Amino acid sequence: MTAAATPKVGGIAPPPPPFRDVARLSLNQMTTDRLSLRDVLDACARHGIPSVGIWRHKIAETGLDTAVGLVRDAGMKVSSVCRGGMFPAATRQEREQRITDNLRAIDEAAALGAPVLVLVCGPSPDRDIDAARRMVEEGIGRIVTHAAERHVMLGIEPLHPAFAAERSCITTLREARLLAEKFDARTVGVVADVYHIWWDADVHEEIARCAGRLAGFHVSDWLVPCKDVLMNRGMMGDGVIELRRLRESAERAGWDGPIEVEIFNETVWKTPIDVLLPLMKERFLACV
Amino acid sequence: MTAAATPKVGGIAPPPPPFRDVARLSLNQMTTDRLSLRDVLDACARHGIPSVGIWRHKIAETGLDTAVGLVRDAGMKVSSVCRGGMFPAATRQEREQRITDNLRAIDEAAALGAPVLVLVCGPSPDRDIDAARRMVEEGIGRIVTHAAERHVMLGIEPLHPAFAAERSCITTLREARLLAEKFDARTVGVVADVYHIWWDADVHEEIARCAGRLAGFHVSDWLVPCKDVLMNRGMMGDGVIELRRLRESAERAGWDGPIEVEIFNETVWKTPIDVLLPLMKERFLACV
Repeated sequence: MTAAATPKVGGIAPPPPPFRDVARLSLNQMTTDRLSLRDVLDACARHGIPSVGIWRHKIAETGLDTAVGLVRDAGMKVSSVCRGGMFPAATRQEREQRITDNLRAIDEAAALGAPVLVLVCGPSPDRDIDAARRMVEEGIGRIVTHAAERHVMLGIEPLHPAFAAERSCITTLREARLLAEKFDARTVGVVADVYHIWWDADVHEEIARCAGRLAGFHVSDWLVPCKDVLMNRGMMGDGVIELRRLRESAERAGWDGPIEVEIFNETVWKTPIDVLLPLMKERFLACV
Repeated sequence: MTAAATPKVGGIAPPPPPFRDVARLSLNQMTTDRLSLRDVLDACARHGIPSVGIWRHKIAETGLDTAVGLVRDAGMKVSSVCRGGMFPAATRQEREQRITDNLRAIDEAAALGAPVLVLVCGPSPDRDIDAARRMVEEGIGRIVTHAAERHVMLGIEPLHPAFAAERSCITTLREARLLAEKFDARTVGVVADVYHIWWDADVHEEIARCAGRLAGFHVSDWLVPCKDVLMNRGMMGDGVIELRRLRESAERAGWDGPIEVEIFNETVWKTPIDVLLPLMKERFLACV
Protein backbone atom coordinates (compact mmCIF):
# COMPACT_ATOMS: atom_id res chain seq x y z
CA MET A 1 0.00 0.00 0.00
CA THR A 2 1.48 3.34 -1.01
CA ALA A 3 1.17 6.53 1.02
CA ALA A 4 -1.18 8.26 -1.39
CA ALA A 5 -4.15 6.54 -2.99
CA THR A 6 -4.69 6.64 -6.71
CA PRO A 7 -7.60 8.96 -7.43
CA LYS A 8 -10.19 7.81 -9.94
CA VAL A 9 -12.62 10.27 -11.45
CA GLY A 10 -14.90 8.51 -13.86
CA GLY A 11 -11.80 7.36 -15.68
CA ILE A 12 -11.16 10.68 -17.39
CA ALA A 13 -10.31 13.65 -15.18
CA PRO A 14 -6.72 13.98 -14.00
CA PRO A 15 -5.99 13.46 -10.33
CA PRO A 16 -6.07 16.67 -8.31
CA PRO A 17 -2.65 18.16 -7.74
CA PRO A 18 -1.22 17.94 -4.23
CA PHE A 19 -1.36 21.15 -2.24
CA ARG A 20 1.81 23.23 -2.58
CA ASP A 21 1.43 24.87 0.78
CA VAL A 22 -0.55 24.59 3.97
CA ALA A 23 -2.76 27.65 3.40
CA ARG A 24 -5.88 25.49 3.72
CA LEU A 25 -4.65 23.39 6.64
CA SER A 26 -6.39 23.81 9.97
CA LEU A 27 -5.46 22.06 13.20
CA ASN A 28 -8.51 20.75 14.97
CA GLN A 29 -7.68 21.05 18.62
CA MET A 30 -8.67 17.45 19.35
CA THR A 31 -5.43 16.42 17.58
CA THR A 32 -3.52 18.07 20.43
CA ASP A 33 -5.92 17.21 23.22
CA ARG A 34 -3.31 17.47 25.98
CA LEU A 35 -2.44 21.10 25.24
CA SER A 36 -4.07 24.36 26.26
CA LEU A 37 -5.48 26.76 23.68
CA ARG A 38 -2.55 29.10 24.27
CA ASP A 39 0.02 26.37 23.61
CA VAL A 40 -1.81 25.27 20.47
CA LEU A 41 -2.02 28.78 19.07
CA ASP A 42 1.68 29.42 19.80
CA ALA A 43 2.67 26.17 18.10
CA CYS A 44 0.55 26.86 15.02
CA ALA A 45 2.13 30.28 14.71
CA ARG A 46 5.62 28.74 14.97
CA HIS A 47 4.83 26.19 12.27
CA GLY A 48 2.91 28.44 9.91
CA ILE A 49 -0.46 26.76 10.31
CA PRO A 50 -3.02 29.47 9.59
CA SER A 51 -6.14 28.24 11.34
CA VAL A 52 -7.50 26.11 14.13
CA GLY A 53 -10.72 24.32 15.03
CA ILE A 54 -11.45 25.02 18.68
CA TRP A 55 -13.25 22.76 21.16
CA ARG A 56 -15.57 24.19 23.76
CA HIS A 57 -14.02 22.36 26.71
CA LYS A 58 -10.80 24.19 25.87
CA ILE A 59 -12.66 27.50 25.67
CA ALA A 60 -14.12 26.72 29.10
CA GLU A 61 -10.61 26.17 30.49
CA THR A 62 -9.48 29.69 29.63
CA GLY A 63 -12.81 31.50 29.63
CA LEU A 64 -14.33 32.88 26.43
CA ASP A 65 -12.93 36.42 26.67
CA THR A 66 -9.39 35.16 27.19
CA ALA A 67 -9.82 32.69 24.31
CA VAL A 68 -10.98 35.49 22.02
CA GLY A 69 -7.98 37.59 23.04
CA LEU A 70 -5.55 34.72 22.50
CA VAL A 71 -6.89 34.03 19.02
CA ARG A 72 -6.80 37.73 18.09
CA ASP A 73 -3.27 38.21 19.43
CA ALA A 74 -2.09 35.13 17.53
CA GLY A 75 -3.60 36.44 14.29
CA MET A 76 -5.12 33.02 13.82
CA LYS A 77 -8.29 32.11 11.93
CA VAL A 78 -10.81 29.86 13.64
CA SER A 79 -12.21 27.39 11.11
CA SER A 80 -14.91 26.00 13.43
CA VAL A 81 -16.02 25.53 16.99
CA CYS A 82 -16.70 21.97 18.15
CA ARG A 83 -19.28 21.14 19.23
CA GLY A 84 -22.97 21.89 19.52
CA GLY A 85 -25.68 19.30 19.14
CA MET A 86 -26.54 16.52 21.61
CA PHE A 87 -30.22 17.35 21.15
CA PRO A 88 -32.07 14.13 22.11
CA ALA A 89 -32.86 13.57 25.76
CA ALA A 90 -35.46 11.68 27.75
CA THR A 91 -37.29 14.70 29.18
CA ARG A 92 -38.42 18.05 27.82
CA GLN A 93 -36.49 19.81 30.57
CA GLU A 94 -33.24 18.14 29.52
CA ARG A 95 -33.90 18.98 25.88
CA GLU A 96 -34.45 22.63 26.84
CA GLN A 97 -31.11 22.63 28.65
CA ARG A 98 -29.46 21.33 25.48
CA ILE A 99 -31.07 24.15 23.47
CA THR A 100 -29.78 26.73 25.93
CA ASP A 101 -26.32 25.24 25.69
CA ASN A 102 -26.44 25.30 21.89
CA LEU A 103 -27.41 28.98 21.90
CA ARG A 104 -24.38 29.62 24.09
CA ALA A 105 -22.20 27.61 21.70
CA ILE A 106 -23.37 29.79 18.81
CA ASP A 107 -22.42 32.88 20.81
CA GLU A 108 -18.98 31.43 21.49
CA ALA A 109 -18.45 30.66 17.82
CA ALA A 110 -19.52 34.18 16.88
CA ALA A 111 -17.21 35.72 19.47
CA LEU A 112 -14.28 33.71 18.13
CA GLY A 113 -15.08 34.64 14.54
CA ALA A 114 -15.71 31.00 13.65
CA PRO A 115 -17.93 30.66 10.58
CA VAL A 116 -19.20 27.22 11.66
CA LEU A 117 -20.46 25.47 14.77
CA VAL A 118 -20.04 21.72 14.29
CA LEU A 119 -23.08 19.74 15.45
CA VAL A 120 -22.58 16.27 16.90
CA CYS A 121 -26.26 15.53 17.08
CA GLY A 122 -26.37 13.10 19.99
CA PRO A 123 -27.56 9.54 20.64
CA SER A 124 -31.07 8.39 21.42
CA PRO A 125 -31.99 8.26 25.12
CA ASP A 126 -33.75 4.94 24.47
CA ARG A 127 -34.27 2.36 21.72
CA ASP A 128 -36.36 4.66 19.58
CA ILE A 129 -33.65 6.08 17.32
CA ASP A 130 -36.17 7.57 14.89
CA ALA A 131 -37.71 9.61 17.72
CA ALA A 132 -34.20 10.84 18.54
CA ARG A 133 -33.80 11.91 14.93
CA ARG A 134 -36.98 13.96 15.22
CA MET A 135 -35.57 15.58 18.39
CA VAL A 136 -32.46 16.56 16.42
CA GLU A 137 -34.55 18.21 13.73
CA GLU A 138 -36.63 19.99 16.36
CA GLY A 139 -33.49 21.13 18.17
CA ILE A 140 -31.90 22.56 15.05
CA GLY A 141 -35.17 24.34 14.33
CA ARG A 142 -34.96 25.97 17.74
CA ILE A 143 -31.45 27.39 17.25
CA VAL A 144 -31.35 28.19 13.56
CA THR A 145 -32.65 31.77 13.84
CA HIS A 146 -30.06 32.62 16.48
CA ALA A 147 -27.34 31.08 14.33
CA ALA A 148 -28.44 33.15 11.33
CA GLU A 149 -28.46 36.33 13.41
CA ARG A 150 -24.94 35.63 14.67
CA HIS A 151 -23.72 34.64 11.20
CA VAL A 152 -22.68 31.20 12.41
CA MET A 153 -23.39 28.28 10.13
CA LEU A 154 -24.55 25.06 11.77
CA GLY A 155 -22.59 22.13 10.37
CA ILE A 156 -24.31 18.78 10.88
CA GLU A 157 -21.55 16.18 11.17
CA PRO A 158 -22.70 12.63 10.54
CA LEU A 159 -20.71 10.29 12.78
CA HIS A 160 -19.60 6.79 11.89
CA PRO A 161 -22.39 4.26 12.52
CA ALA A 162 -20.24 2.72 15.25
CA PHE A 163 -21.18 5.80 17.32
CA ALA A 164 -24.93 5.58 16.66
CA ALA A 165 -25.75 4.34 20.15
CA GLU A 166 -23.52 6.74 22.06
CA ARG A 167 -22.78 9.93 20.13
CA SER A 168 -24.94 10.58 17.09
CA CYS A 169 -28.14 9.16 15.69
CA ILE A 170 -27.21 10.90 12.42
CA THR A 171 -24.86 8.43 10.77
CA THR A 172 -24.45 9.06 7.06
CA LEU A 173 -23.72 12.00 4.83
CA ARG A 174 -27.01 11.37 3.06
CA GLU A 175 -28.94 11.52 6.33
CA ALA A 176 -27.13 14.71 7.38
CA ARG A 177 -27.78 16.31 3.99
CA LEU A 178 -31.48 15.43 3.97
CA LEU A 179 -31.75 16.94 7.45
CA ALA A 180 -29.81 20.07 6.45
CA GLU A 181 -32.03 20.54 3.41
CA LYS A 182 -34.98 21.18 5.70
CA PHE A 183 -33.34 24.50 6.58
CA ASP A 184 -31.86 27.53 4.81
CA ALA A 185 -28.62 26.61 3.03
CA ARG A 186 -26.98 29.79 4.31
CA THR A 187 -27.37 28.62 7.91
CA VAL A 188 -27.43 24.82 7.99
CA GLY A 189 -24.87 22.66 6.24
CA VAL A 190 -22.98 19.42 6.53
CA VAL A 191 -19.49 18.67 7.85
CA ALA A 192 -17.80 15.81 6.02
CA ASP A 193 -15.20 14.03 8.15
CA VAL A 194 -13.52 11.27 6.16
CA TYR A 195 -13.18 9.01 9.20
CA HIS A 196 -16.95 8.87 9.56
CA ILE A 197 -17.93 8.48 5.90
CA TRP A 198 -15.14 6.76 3.93
CA TRP A 199 -16.75 3.30 4.02
CA ASP A 200 -19.94 4.46 2.27
CA ALA A 201 -20.35 3.01 -1.23
CA ASP A 202 -22.10 6.25 -2.23
CA VAL A 203 -19.68 8.64 -0.54
CA HIS A 204 -18.45 10.42 -3.66
CA GLU A 205 -21.93 10.80 -5.13
CA GLU A 206 -23.18 12.00 -1.74
CA ILE A 207 -20.43 14.60 -1.40
CA ALA A 208 -21.46 15.85 -4.84
CA ARG A 209 -25.06 16.15 -3.64
CA CYS A 210 -23.81 18.26 -0.72
CA ALA A 211 -22.74 21.03 -3.12
CA GLY A 212 -23.79 24.31 -1.57
CA ARG A 213 -24.23 22.66 1.81
CA LEU A 214 -20.65 21.76 2.79
CA ALA A 215 -19.68 23.52 5.98
CA GLY A 216 -16.46 21.66 6.73
CA PHE A 217 -14.07 18.94 5.59
CA HIS A 218 -12.08 17.00 8.17
CA VAL A 219 -9.26 14.54 7.56
CA SER A 220 -7.44 11.82 9.50
CA ASP A 221 -7.12 8.12 8.66
CA TRP A 222 -8.69 4.78 9.62
CA LEU A 223 -6.07 2.52 11.17
CA VAL A 224 -5.99 -1.26 10.80
CA PRO A 225 -6.53 -3.27 12.93
CA CYS A 226 -9.29 -1.37 14.72
CA LYS A 227 -10.01 -2.16 18.34
CA ASP A 228 -11.43 0.93 20.05
CA VAL A 229 -13.29 2.74 17.31
CA LEU A 230 -13.20 6.10 19.12
CA MET A 231 -9.41 6.17 19.37
CA ASN A 232 -8.67 4.42 16.07
CA ARG A 233 -7.88 7.54 14.03
CA GLY A 234 -4.43 7.94 12.64
CA MET A 235 -2.26 10.47 10.85
CA MET A 236 -3.11 10.86 7.18
CA GLY A 237 -1.35 8.17 5.20
CA ASP A 238 -1.17 5.67 8.06
CA GLY A 239 -4.53 4.05 7.29
CA VAL A 240 -6.81 2.89 4.51
CA ILE A 241 -8.77 5.99 3.51
CA GLU A 242 -8.54 7.32 -0.07
CA LEU A 243 -7.92 10.83 1.18
CA ARG A 244 -7.04 12.59 -2.04
CA ARG A 245 -10.01 11.17 -3.88
CA LEU A 246 -12.33 12.37 -1.10
CA ARG A 247 -10.69 15.79 -1.08
CA GLU A 248 -11.21 15.99 -4.80
CA SER A 249 -14.88 15.12 -4.42
CA ALA A 250 -15.24 17.86 -1.81
CA GLU A 251 -13.58 20.38 -4.13
CA ARG A 252 -15.80 19.38 -7.03
CA ALA A 253 -18.72 20.04 -4.70
CA GLY A 254 -17.35 23.54 -4.19
CA TRP A 255 -15.41 23.18 -0.96
CA ASP A 256 -12.53 25.64 -0.98
CA GLY A 257 -12.42 26.28 2.75
CA PRO A 258 -10.08 25.04 5.47
CA ILE A 259 -9.35 21.34 5.85
CA GLU A 260 -9.22 20.39 9.51
CA VAL A 261 -7.00 17.61 10.79
CA GLU A 262 -8.86 15.93 13.66
CA ILE A 263 -7.19 12.90 15.23
CA PHE A 264 -8.33 11.12 18.39
CA ASN A 265 -5.30 8.91 19.10
CA GLU A 266 -3.28 8.39 22.26
CA THR A 267 0.02 8.09 20.39
CA VAL A 268 -0.63 11.31 18.52
CA TRP A 269 -1.58 13.00 21.78
CA LYS A 270 1.70 11.90 23.37
CA THR A 271 3.82 13.21 20.47
CA PRO A 272 5.58 16.52 21.24
CA ILE A 273 3.82 19.23 19.26
CA ASP A 274 7.01 20.40 17.55
CA VAL A 275 7.36 16.89 16.16
CA LEU A 276 3.68 16.43 15.45
CA LEU A 277 2.98 19.60 13.46
CA PRO A 278 5.80 19.16 10.91
CA LEU A 279 4.61 15.57 10.35
CA MET A 280 1.03 16.76 9.98
CA LYS A 281 2.08 19.34 7.37
CA GLU A 282 4.15 16.77 5.47
CA ARG A 283 1.28 14.28 5.36
CA PHE A 284 -1.21 17.00 4.44
CA LEU A 285 0.89 17.80 1.39
CA ALA A 286 1.62 14.16 0.52
CA CYS A 287 -1.73 12.49 1.16
CA VAL A 288 -4.62 14.98 1.19
CA MET B 1 -35.55 1.27 28.85
CA THR B 2 -37.87 -1.73 28.77
CA ALA B 3 -36.87 -5.14 27.52
CA ALA B 4 -38.91 -4.96 24.33
CA ALA B 5 -39.00 -1.90 22.09
CA THR B 6 -42.30 -0.37 21.09
CA PRO B 7 -42.97 -1.15 17.45
CA LYS B 8 -44.12 1.68 15.22
CA VAL B 9 -45.66 0.93 11.86
CA GLY B 10 -46.71 4.09 10.14
CA GLY B 11 -48.89 4.79 13.15
CA ILE B 12 -51.63 2.39 12.07
CA ALA B 13 -50.76 -1.32 12.00
CA PRO B 14 -50.76 -3.21 15.30
CA PRO B 15 -47.44 -4.38 16.68
CA PRO B 16 -46.53 -7.91 15.63
CA PRO B 17 -47.40 -10.49 18.23
CA PRO B 18 -44.53 -12.13 20.09
CA PHE B 19 -43.67 -15.62 18.99
CA ARG B 20 -45.50 -18.28 21.00
CA ASP B 21 -42.84 -20.89 20.50
CA VAL B 22 -39.30 -21.28 19.24
CA ALA B 23 -40.19 -23.01 15.98
CA ARG B 24 -38.37 -20.29 14.01
CA LEU B 25 -35.39 -20.01 16.35
CA SER B 26 -32.01 -21.11 15.07
CA LEU B 27 -28.78 -21.17 17.05
CA ASN B 28 -25.93 -19.74 15.04
CA GLN B 29 -22.92 -21.69 16.19
CA MET B 30 -20.88 -18.53 16.80
CA THR B 31 -23.04 -17.96 19.89
CA THR B 32 -21.49 -21.11 21.37
CA ASP B 33 -18.02 -20.71 19.92
CA ARG B 34 -16.31 -22.82 22.58
CA LEU B 35 -18.35 -25.96 21.85
CA SER B 36 -17.98 -28.67 19.22
CA LEU B 37 -20.70 -29.30 16.65
CA ARG B 38 -21.67 -32.49 18.48
CA ASP B 39 -22.14 -30.66 21.79
CA VAL B 40 -24.17 -27.91 20.13
CA LEU B 41 -26.47 -30.36 18.37
CA ASP B 42 -26.99 -32.34 21.58
CA ALA B 43 -27.81 -29.16 23.53
CA CYS B 44 -30.24 -27.91 20.89
CA ALA B 45 -32.03 -31.25 20.95
CA ARG B 46 -32.25 -31.10 24.77
CA HIS B 47 -33.72 -27.61 24.67
CA GLY B 48 -36.05 -28.05 21.72
CA ILE B 49 -34.24 -25.68 19.36
CA PRO B 50 -35.04 -26.93 15.87
CA SER B 51 -32.20 -25.56 13.76
CA VAL B 52 -28.62 -24.38 13.75
CA GLY B 53 -26.38 -22.15 11.65
CA ILE B 54 -23.08 -23.97 11.21
CA TRP B 55 -19.63 -22.42 10.80
CA ARG B 56 -17.08 -23.92 8.50
CA HIS B 57 -14.24 -23.99 11.03
CA LYS B 58 -16.46 -26.25 13.13
CA ILE B 59 -17.15 -28.45 10.10
CA ALA B 60 -13.39 -28.63 9.57
CA GLU B 61 -12.90 -29.81 13.16
CA THR B 62 -15.08 -32.90 12.68
CA GLY B 63 -14.75 -33.39 8.94
CA LEU B 64 -17.68 -32.90 6.57
CA ASP B 65 -18.92 -36.50 6.51
CA THR B 66 -19.03 -36.71 10.29
CA ALA B 67 -20.78 -33.32 10.46
CA VAL B 68 -23.41 -34.50 7.99
CA GLY B 69 -23.95 -37.66 10.05
CA LEU B 70 -24.22 -35.71 13.32
CA VAL B 71 -26.83 -33.35 11.88
CA ARG B 72 -28.81 -36.23 10.39
CA ASP B 73 -28.71 -38.25 13.60
CA ALA B 74 -29.80 -35.21 15.63
CA GLY B 75 -32.76 -34.62 13.29
CA MET B 76 -31.71 -31.00 13.17
CA LYS B 77 -32.28 -28.49 10.36
CA VAL B 78 -29.35 -26.39 9.19
CA SER B 79 -30.50 -22.83 8.53
CA SER B 80 -27.23 -21.69 6.96
CA VAL B 81 -23.55 -22.32 6.61
CA CYS B 82 -21.18 -19.47 7.55
CA ARG B 83 -19.23 -18.39 5.65
CA GLY B 84 -18.21 -17.98 2.08
CA GLY B 85 -17.01 -14.74 0.56
CA MET B 86 -13.67 -13.01 1.22
CA PHE B 87 -13.35 -12.42 -2.52
CA PRO B 88 -10.98 -9.42 -2.81
CA ALA B 89 -7.25 -10.11 -2.81
CA ALA B 90 -4.16 -8.44 -4.16
CA THR B 91 -3.30 -11.03 -6.80
CA ARG B 92 -5.27 -13.05 -9.33
CA GLN B 93 -3.83 -16.24 -7.86
CA GLU B 94 -5.15 -15.40 -4.41
CA ARG B 95 -8.53 -14.51 -5.84
CA GLU B 96 -8.65 -17.87 -7.64
CA GLN B 97 -7.92 -19.63 -4.35
CA ARG B 98 -10.84 -17.79 -2.79
CA ILE B 99 -13.11 -18.93 -5.63
CA THR B 100 -12.02 -22.54 -5.12
CA ASP B 101 -12.72 -22.23 -1.42
CA ASN B 102 -16.17 -20.76 -2.09
CA LEU B 103 -17.03 -23.64 -4.41
CA ARG B 104 -16.07 -26.01 -1.61
CA ALA B 105 -18.21 -24.02 0.85
CA ILE B 106 -21.19 -24.43 -1.49
CA ASP B 107 -20.60 -28.18 -1.55
CA GLU B 108 -20.46 -28.26 2.24
CA ALA B 109 -23.71 -26.32 2.53
CA ALA B 110 -25.36 -28.67 0.03
CA ALA B 111 -24.10 -31.75 1.89
CA LEU B 112 -25.51 -30.40 5.16
CA GLY B 113 -28.85 -29.56 3.57
CA ALA B 114 -28.36 -25.86 4.30
CA PRO B 115 -30.45 -23.66 2.00
CA VAL B 116 -28.05 -20.72 2.32
CA LEU B 117 -24.34 -20.02 2.28
CA VAL B 118 -23.73 -16.72 4.07
CA LEU B 119 -21.22 -14.51 2.23
CA VAL B 120 -18.96 -12.22 4.25
CA CYS B 121 -17.56 -10.49 1.24
CA GLY B 122 -14.12 -9.48 2.49
CA PRO B 123 -12.10 -6.28 2.87
CA SER B 124 -10.07 -4.49 0.24
CA PRO B 125 -6.41 -5.54 -0.04
CA ASP B 126 -5.49 -1.84 -0.44
CA ARG B 127 -7.07 1.62 -0.27
CA ASP B 128 -9.17 1.10 -3.38
CA ILE B 129 -12.41 -0.10 -1.77
CA ASP B 130 -14.39 0.37 -5.00
CA ALA B 131 -12.03 -2.02 -6.77
CA ALA B 132 -12.62 -4.51 -3.96
CA ARG B 133 -16.36 -4.17 -4.51
CA ARG B 134 -15.86 -5.06 -8.16
CA MET B 135 -13.85 -8.13 -7.08
CA VAL B 136 -16.79 -9.19 -4.91
CA GLU B 137 -19.18 -8.92 -7.83
CA GLU B 138 -16.79 -10.83 -10.04
CA GLY B 139 -16.34 -13.48 -7.38
CA ILE B 140 -20.06 -14.03 -6.92
CA GLY B 141 -20.37 -14.26 -10.68
CA ARG B 142 -17.83 -17.07 -10.66
CA ILE B 143 -19.69 -19.21 -8.11
CA VAL B 144 -23.32 -18.50 -8.84
CA THR B 145 -23.82 -21.28 -11.36
CA HIS B 146 -22.38 -23.86 -9.00
CA ALA B 147 -24.60 -22.54 -6.21
CA ALA B 148 -27.69 -22.83 -8.43
CA GLU B 149 -26.75 -26.38 -9.42
CA ARG B 150 -26.34 -27.37 -5.79
CA HIS B 151 -29.55 -25.55 -4.76
CA VAL B 152 -27.67 -23.37 -2.29
CA MET B 153 -28.64 -19.71 -2.11
CA LEU B 154 -25.82 -17.21 -1.69
CA GLY B 155 -26.73 -14.74 1.05
CA ILE B 156 -24.74 -11.50 0.87
CA GLU B 157 -24.42 -10.23 4.42
CA PRO B 158 -23.59 -6.54 4.69
CA LEU B 159 -21.36 -6.01 7.72
CA HIS B 160 -21.38 -2.97 9.97
CA PRO B 161 -19.26 -0.14 8.51
CA ALA B 162 -16.88 -0.56 11.45
CA PHE B 163 -15.70 -3.73 9.67
CA ALA B 164 -15.22 -2.11 6.25
CA ALA B 165 -11.42 -2.16 6.48
CA GLU B 166 -11.03 -5.68 7.83
CA ARG B 167 -13.98 -7.92 7.00
CA SER B 168 -16.37 -6.62 4.36
CA CYS B 169 -16.34 -3.84 1.80
CA ILE B 170 -20.11 -4.36 1.53
CA THR B 171 -21.47 -2.30 4.40
CA THR B 172 -25.17 -1.54 4.01
CA LEU B 173 -28.32 -3.46 3.22
CA ARG B 174 -28.82 -1.19 0.22
CA GLU B 175 -25.38 -1.99 -1.13
CA ALA B 176 -25.91 -5.72 -0.60
CA ARG B 177 -29.32 -5.59 -2.27
CA LEU B 178 -28.06 -3.67 -5.30
CA LEU B 179 -25.29 -6.24 -5.64
CA ALA B 180 -27.69 -9.17 -5.25
CA GLU B 181 -29.99 -7.70 -7.89
CA LYS B 182 -27.30 -8.23 -10.50
CA PHE B 183 -27.98 -11.97 -10.18
CA ASP B 184 -30.95 -14.35 -10.27
CA ALA B 185 -33.15 -13.86 -7.19
CA ARG B 186 -33.42 -17.63 -6.79
CA THR B 187 -29.68 -17.90 -6.18
CA VAL B 188 -28.40 -14.62 -4.74
CA GLY B 189 -30.05 -12.89 -1.80
CA VAL B 190 -29.27 -10.78 1.23
CA VAL B 191 -28.78 -11.73 4.87
CA ALA B 192 -30.02 -9.06 7.28
CA ASP B 193 -28.24 -9.16 10.64
CA VAL B 194 -29.66 -6.52 12.96
CA TYR B 195 -26.27 -5.86 14.58
CA HIS B 196 -24.88 -4.70 11.25
CA ILE B 197 -27.82 -2.63 10.02
CA TRP B 198 -29.84 -1.24 12.96
CA TRP B 199 -28.24 2.23 12.84
CA ASP B 200 -29.31 2.90 9.23
CA ALA B 201 -31.95 5.65 8.94
CA ASP B 202 -33.40 3.78 5.95
CA VAL B 203 -33.25 0.30 7.45
CA HIS B 204 -36.99 -0.43 7.45
CA GLU B 205 -37.51 0.90 3.92
CA GLU B 206 -34.44 -1.06 2.80
CA ILE B 207 -35.69 -4.31 4.33
CA ALA B 208 -38.93 -3.73 2.42
CA ARG B 209 -36.95 -3.32 -0.80
CA CYS B 210 -35.28 -6.68 -0.07
CA ALA B 211 -38.63 -8.47 -0.52
CA GLY B 212 -37.95 -11.60 -2.55
CA ARG B 213 -34.22 -11.34 -1.82
CA LEU B 214 -34.04 -12.07 1.90
CA ALA B 215 -31.94 -15.15 2.54
CA GLY B 216 -31.58 -14.84 6.30
CA PHE B 217 -32.40 -12.78 9.37
CA HIS B 218 -29.99 -12.74 12.32
CA VAL B 219 -30.54 -11.24 15.75
CA SER B 220 -28.42 -10.21 18.74
CA ASP B 221 -28.14 -6.78 20.36
CA TRP B 222 -25.80 -3.75 20.37
CA LEU B 223 -24.39 -3.21 23.86
CA VAL B 224 -23.57 0.18 25.35
CA PRO B 225 -20.88 1.26 25.94
CA CYS B 226 -19.09 -0.23 22.94
CA LYS B 227 -15.36 -0.74 23.09
CA ASP B 228 -14.37 -3.63 20.83
CA VAL B 229 -16.92 -3.55 18.05
CA LEU B 230 -16.34 -7.20 17.07
CA MET B 231 -17.17 -8.55 20.53
CA ASN B 232 -19.82 -5.98 21.43
CA ARG B 233 -22.86 -8.12 20.64
CA GLY B 234 -25.19 -9.00 23.44
CA MET B 235 -28.20 -11.18 24.17
CA MET B 236 -31.44 -9.82 22.73
CA GLY B 237 -32.88 -7.25 25.11
CA ASP B 238 -29.55 -6.27 26.65
CA GLY B 239 -28.82 -3.50 24.14
CA VAL B 240 -30.38 -0.71 22.12
CA ILE B 241 -31.72 -2.39 18.97
CA GLU B 242 -35.46 -2.21 18.19
CA LEU B 243 -35.58 -5.94 17.54
CA ARG B 244 -39.31 -6.50 17.21
CA ARG B 245 -39.72 -3.62 14.79
CA LEU B 246 -36.94 -5.02 12.61
CA ARG B 247 -38.42 -8.50 12.77
CA GLU B 248 -41.74 -7.06 11.70
CA SER B 249 -40.11 -5.31 8.75
CA ALA B 250 -38.49 -8.59 7.72
CA GLU B 251 -41.84 -10.39 7.93
CA ARG B 252 -43.57 -7.70 5.90
CA ALA B 253 -40.85 -8.27 3.30
CA GLY B 254 -41.85 -11.93 3.26
CA TRP B 255 -39.32 -13.48 5.61
CA ASP B 256 -40.88 -16.51 7.26
CA GLY B 257 -37.72 -18.56 7.63
CA PRO B 258 -35.49 -19.25 10.60
CA ILE B 259 -34.19 -16.43 12.78
CA GLU B 260 -30.61 -17.09 13.77
CA VAL B 261 -29.17 -15.87 17.06
CA GLU B 262 -25.54 -14.95 16.43
CA ILE B 263 -23.61 -13.45 19.35
CA PHE B 264 -19.87 -12.79 19.44
CA ASN B 265 -19.37 -12.09 23.16
CA GLU B 266 -16.89 -13.52 25.66
CA THR B 267 -19.39 -13.55 28.51
CA VAL B 268 -21.92 -15.42 26.38
CA TRP B 269 -19.20 -17.85 25.31
CA LYS B 270 -18.32 -18.55 28.96
CA THR B 271 -21.95 -19.21 29.96
CA PRO B 272 -22.75 -22.94 30.36
CA ILE B 273 -24.92 -23.97 27.44
CA ASP B 274 -27.70 -25.32 29.64
CA VAL B 275 -27.98 -21.84 31.15
CA LEU B 276 -27.48 -20.00 27.87
CA LEU B 277 -30.08 -21.76 25.73
CA PRO B 278 -33.04 -21.28 28.12
CA LEU B 279 -32.12 -17.57 28.37
CA MET B 280 -31.86 -17.33 24.59
CA LYS B 281 -35.30 -18.89 24.17
CA GLU B 282 -36.80 -16.58 26.80
CA ARG B 283 -35.35 -13.48 25.13
CA PHE B 284 -36.34 -14.69 21.68
CA LEU B 285 -39.95 -14.85 22.86
CA ALA B 286 -39.81 -11.58 24.82
CA CYS B 287 -37.79 -9.33 22.52
CA VAL B 288 -37.76 -10.60 18.92
